[in-house]
Amino acid sequence: MRELGIGLIGTGFMGRAHALAFNNARAVFELPVTLKLAALADADVERAQRCATAWGFAQAHGDWQALINDPNVELVAITTPNHLHYPMAMAAIAAGKAVYCEKPLAVSLEQADAMRRAAHAAGVVTRVGYNYQHNPMISLARQMIAQGDLGEIISFQGEFSEDFMADPTSPWSWRCEVAHAGGALADLGSHLLAMAHYLVGDVESVCADTHTVHAQRPVTSGSSELKAIAVDDQVHALLRFANGARGTVSSSWLKQGYKNHLSFEISGTLGTLAFDQERLNELRLYRVGQDGFQRLLAGPALPGYAAFSPAAGHQLGYNELKTLEVQELIMAVAGQGAEGTDFDAAWAVERLATAIRVAAKEERWIKVQEV
Amino acid sequence: MRELGIGLIGTGFMGRAHALAFNNARAVFELPVTLKLAALADADVERAQRCATAWGFAQAHGDWQALINDPNVELVAITTPNHLHYPMAMAAIAAGKAVYCEKPLAVSLEQADAMRRAAHAAGVVTRVGYNYQHNPMISLARQMIAQGDLGEIISFQGEFSEDFMADPTSPWSWRCEVAHAGGALADLGSHLLAMAHYLVGDVESVCADTHTVHAQRPVTSGSSELKAIAVDDQVHALLRFANGARGTVSSSWLKQGYKNHLSFEISGTLGTLAFDQERLNELRLYRVGQDGFQRLLAGPALPGYAAFSPAAGHQLGYNELKTLEVQELIMAVAGQGAEGTDFDAAWAVERLATAIRVAAKEERWIKVQEV
Amino acid sequence: MRELGIGLIGTGFMGRAHALAFNNARAVFELPVTLKLAALADADVERAQRCATAWGFAQAHGDWQALINDPNVELVAITTPNHLHYPMAMAAIAAGKAVYCEKPLAVSLEQADAMRRAAHAAGVVTRVGYNYQHNPMISLARQMIAQGDLGEIISFQGEFSEDFMADPTSPWSWRCEVAHAGGALADLGSHLLAMAHYLVGDVESVCADTHTVHAQRPVTSGSSELKAIAVDDQVHALLRFANGARGTVSSSWLKQGYKNHLSFEISGTLGTLAFDQERLNELRLYRVGQDGFQRLLAGPALPGYAAFSPAAGHQLGYNELKTLEVQELIMAVAGQGAEGTDFDAAWAVERLATAIRVAAKEERWIKVQEV
Amino acid sequence: MRELGIGLIGTGFMGRAHALAFNNARAVFELPVTLKLAALADADVERAQRCATAWGFAQAHGDWQALINDPNVELVAITTPNHLHYPMAMAAIAAGKAVYCEKPLAVSLEQADAMRRAAHAAGVVTRVGYNYQHNPMISLARQMIAQGDLGEIISFQGEFSEDFMADPTSPWSWRCEVAHAGGALADLGSHLLAMAHYLVGDVESVCADTHTVHAQRPVTSGSSELKAIAVDDQVHALLRFANGARGTVSSSWLKQGYKNHLSFEISGTLGTLAFDQERLNELRLYRVGQDGFQRLLAGPALPGYAAFSPAAGHQLGYNELKTLEVQELIMAVAGQGAEGTDFDAAWAVERLATAIRVAAKEERWIKVQEV
Repeated sequence: MRELGIGLIGTGFMGRAHALAFNNARAVFELPVTLKLAALADADVERAQRCATAWGFAQAHGDWQALINDPNVELVAITTPNHLHYPMAMAAIAAGKAVYCEKPLAVSLEQADAMRRAAHAAGVVTRVGYNYQHNPMISLARQMIAQGDLGEIISFQGEFSEDFMADPTSPWSWRCEVAHAGGALADLGSHLLAMAHYLVGDVESVCADTHTVHAQRPVTSGSSELKAIAVDDQVHALLRFANGARGTVSSSWLKQGYKNHLSFEISGTLGTLAFDQERLNELRLYRVGQDGFQRLLAGPALPGYAAFSPAAGHQLGYNELKTLEVQELIMAVAGQGAEGTDFDAAWAVERLATAIRVAAKEERWIKVQEV
Repeated sequence: MRELGIGLIGTGFMGRAHALAFNNARAVFELPVTLKLAALADADVERAQRCATAWGFAQAHGDWQALINDPNVELVAITTPNHLHYPMAMAAIAAGKAVYCEKPLAVSLEQADAMRRAAHAAGVVTRVGYNYQHNPMISLARQMIAQGDLGEIISFQGEFSEDFMADPTSPWSWRCEVAHAGGALADLGSHLLAMAHYLVGDVESVCADTHTVHAQRPVTSGSSELKAIAVDDQVHALLRFANGARGTVSSSWLKQGYKNHLSFEISGTLGTLAFDQERLNELRLYRVGQDGFQRLLAGPALPGYAAFSPAAGHQLGYNELKTLEVQELIMAVAGQGAEGTDFDAAWAVERLATAIRVAAKEERWIKVQEV
Repeated sequence: MRELGIGLIGTGFMGRAHALAFNNARAVFELPVTLKLAALADADVERAQRCATAWGFAQAHGDWQALINDPNVELVAITTPNHLHYPMAMAAIAAGKAVYCEKPLAVSLEQADAMRRAAHAAGVVTRVGYNYQHNPMISLARQMIAQGDLGEIISFQGEFSEDFMADPTSPWSWRCEVAHAGGALADLGSHLLAMAHYLVGDVESVCADTHTVHAQRPVTSGSSELKAIAVDDQVHALLRFANGARGTVSSSWLKQGYKNHLSFEISGTLGTLAFDQERLNELRLYRVGQDGFQRLLAGPALPGYAAFSPAAGHQLGYNELKTLEVQELIMAVAGQGAEGTDFDAAWAVERLATAIRVAAKEERWIKVQEV
Repeated sequence: MRELGIGLIGTGFMGRAHALAFNNARAVFELPVTLKLAALADADVERAQRCATAWGFAQAHGDWQALINDPNVELVAITTPNHLHYPMAMAAIAAGKAVYCEKPLAVSLEQADAMRRAAHAAGVVTRVGYNYQHNPMISLARQMIAQGDLGEIISFQGEFSEDFMADPTSPWSWRCEVAHAGGALADLGSHLLAMAHYLVGDVESVCADTHTVHAQRPVTSGSSELKAIAVDDQVHALLRFANGARGTVSSSWLKQGYKNHLSFEISGTLGTLAFDQERLNELRLYRVGQDGFQRLLAGPALPGYAAFSPAAGHQLGYNELKTLEVQELIMAVAGQGAEGTDFDAAWAVERLATAIRVAAKEERWIKVQEV
């Protein structure tokens, strides 16, 4: 079987999540290629070496460009800070390599557009890490919607809220910078927009309201020096989908009590389904004729689940969604993939987020195609 | 103790709910006046007589004007179809009587404005039946917000959805007519707007999207003759409150699976609370420092509950919210009331609903004071 | 229509609940007789008079025997402390009157047996206030079981826990006396046993464990003088039903956090249903072939609900269960009733509780018919 | 750093779960030894070879004895059918190697006793795969109980129910044989007993009821030939703990609708906690003074969680509990472990299960030390 050489850039939480996912994907799936963990890069080469050993990579690089140039590397996985996605992905594309980039695709819509164009021109496979989409529960939801189980879709109501920035004394970080794709909308909301797009389709127009609640934060933890904050703490928007459905999205990083509340309800003429990432193995479902909502629990009948457990109720964890994402990526690289969240789809998400920002700033409805 | 003569117009579901509430209020509360069920009116005088006997009213009228003129009647309760609220309330005000009117206050903002002005001029006590506000759980929520338990309020996200019009073959009814205050926004959404107003305060501006999903319905059940429908099946809106909070409201009468889903989350800098009318005896609450959301269950420590049961967990029903509403009304009539949802407050709700309709029609942000 | 004269003994919480229920039953149901609130008795005759006025009773008595002898009284409702149930019910039966007695039927199995025998001999209608059975959700559960919707019933697992005695400094009260039918099993557990009997049928044998956690309590609140406690704080038991089903019951009045946790799961070869009184308007249901448990919400399709509301999701409260109980009682007195919890059924519950006590004391399996 | 050679016997679902866990443990934890996946054994040597390659084992064996004798193997992991646990573990102990055995420890109490004695005599480290104990939520529960957060523990109520044998046409399998440790009590209930033991401590005496609902099953799927079944389909028991707490346990493999319902409530004088494996990342908690139950969501503050994610709400899956179990095992082998579920603890679980069986058969209370 053909070998596929994986190169991974970044050794933080997300770098490790990728490493685990590549390792586990080859153990749990029958893949059409053999995954070879070829190289790991980190600016701190000692750290790169240490992690390479722990995670099973054959080689370590202190320079990401060297990893991209490494002839053993055919697929480049990017888990670095947001502003580095563009140069790294462009270099990988230029080298003719498949790219697996964490979200957000880029820190500006222009970058994102350039990236998807370059990928098209080079003919390389691309994927972006909207890992929540790879939940078997979400695959089921998508299948049900596509099959018409809910009838014609008429509404999407979504929210992604957490509280990690709720404390006004939480200091400034790169997440507070527009230039680094900071703010609740970019950081959290983009996952929700990706989900809306993945499940319900293109959004035609939006109206929105962004809100910076804490306009200043300490420059560092405990400091009395304050720094002005320009990014949004919360955002609310109205959506009109191309298929006629309407909806709302809300996102906040200072909604007390929530930890990973990526949630939505999709309603159609024949039924309603509801999901909350804080209970990722469940789906609430109502179809005409039922007495009440059903609570579905993930099990081996769902796409992807059986690879991890033969029994319903065993539950998948966050990291296993990443393993499922890697499987889909590898199938695509091997030419056997179905449609996935590639640079085109990720750019569409960025464009939608941009439209929301413009609509909020100009206080008017915006056609997404305008931006 | 002084007697207070009650006159009730209407003998439908809501008429009976009022009758039960007056009867039960005098049994469970120590009121400053003695309630006397003086008269009941229905256009069908035989029905009026039959109901008067069953419900304990001293007299029956076939003509509502006669009830208003009845010298034994000091307080007029109106439970008739929406378009009759205006003439009946205006007549009662003209007669110098207190008025207790079901929601919506009127079928147009002009009517509502005239009603509140007339009530001011006459100096009569008025109340409107936004009964969900009288839930002890809601009283607790209001108290907590007023006391600052949640800090500065930053968001309100609300929804009121049901599915009773979800079937496209459900026929046309007066609820489908603009002139009768039909549509999801007027019928359901107004409860949600009243709640937002009651808990968070005045709304300054709105942007909105109304949507008629089923543009035609059979003229009667089973008929092949169709009638065009102009009212909204669902509505989504963005709100900006005067106090700086932001929010969304959604309302639908064709969201499959929901029966009485008047729900909201209010988040502040120090906490979040969540409520769903489908579990009216509960409140979900998170305050900074807690490990997770608490589920509060109604009990005698809450305002109003102990009148019905000495024990927590016994639970109140919908009809008891009406009894609590009547208590508040009677206290107001007796001159001992606190602020309640009078014609001014109800007019503010109508104005907000109107602003939402205008914003949707003109596809732009609207200042509520503009309308 | 024939009048039925109601006499009520007791003006505490439960007395008022009865008064409300009689008042409301005649407003919401079409009964075959006209209810006349004939007389109210309380040892404190002034209180009796005051309550009679507030609750609509024609007459007040300071002596319960006088109420029973009152020729206007045809049905005697007993809401006094447990040890008075026996003399009052026996007197009413001797006077040939129907009896509606609060639970427990008596403070000893011997008394209960004498009461049911006397009622049989006199041919009077009797009912006992196991009000939780009259919940439309429970009626639905019973109907489903009877129809075989769950297949053959194989298990019942029930619990009734509250925490009102959890504080070890909560003082002694009559509830702590065996002679007054005190203890968690008698006070709470009997409701659960009644439910098991009502839904699954006769219990053949039991094994059990009763447990007094706080063996002493202050004689009065705040006192340093302690009194020995002989009744159970919690009880756990195994049941074998006559139909072959097996089960467990647990009851505690010191389980922290619970307020009215009368809950059970009944499982059969074709499905499982689950109920919790803390959410009395819901039933969780799974039937073979479903994807997951459904959450049913009370609505007008259920037996009894429509009398209170035409719409699903409006929810009934505790007091309305009492109104439903009164309706069933009145139908029985009018000769139109189906089987209900009469003195025979209540005696069977007492016998089951006694068997549990014996089994716990003798530390062995006991056949219920032995006691 | 010292290397520790791992030998794994078995390549089924549980074999793969072990392989994943060893792989992931070295990636996510800083272990005091380097894990070397030395050898994998399966009677089908080709399968062993294929899996060894996929899972990263250096060598494959067709004979488990060869694996145990392999000098590179220092720790033997056993994931074979239950009746092979005894000979394999005894051989590994005889070879002086650490043993990590799946539950149940053995198919008879005698075997289990011999195994724990042999392990003591040989001085080897042992662990048994009661993986549910390694959930950070359970670690938290244990910590809270040990610290006295719930006060004195007074009750444990537990249930482990699934429905995978609910269909009476599900055929006979080894799980239906006493000699293979079949039946609901051994298969599922033992997890619950282990949990009760782990959290509340030793059980002193039991009374129980086992029940075979379907006394015959097809010999193979679809066959009309039936085979008599002697094992229990469901079991209910009363427990008395050495510390005075009382409780119930129920287990069933034919309770419709449940998939992995390992659930319990533990109540003490100061609080109550509740857990359900179907929502393994949550704990419901009430402590005196709270308004209602809190829902805790797993996060990095809990023991073990941070290794998998830096953020609360990301959720662990079943397989990650196994990784946590492996970590605890490796720490023990490295001499740095705390107390864990070794052969002694697993034998105590078997003894308790045996006591339950004897109590059910003899229909009497049994002291656990009697068996």
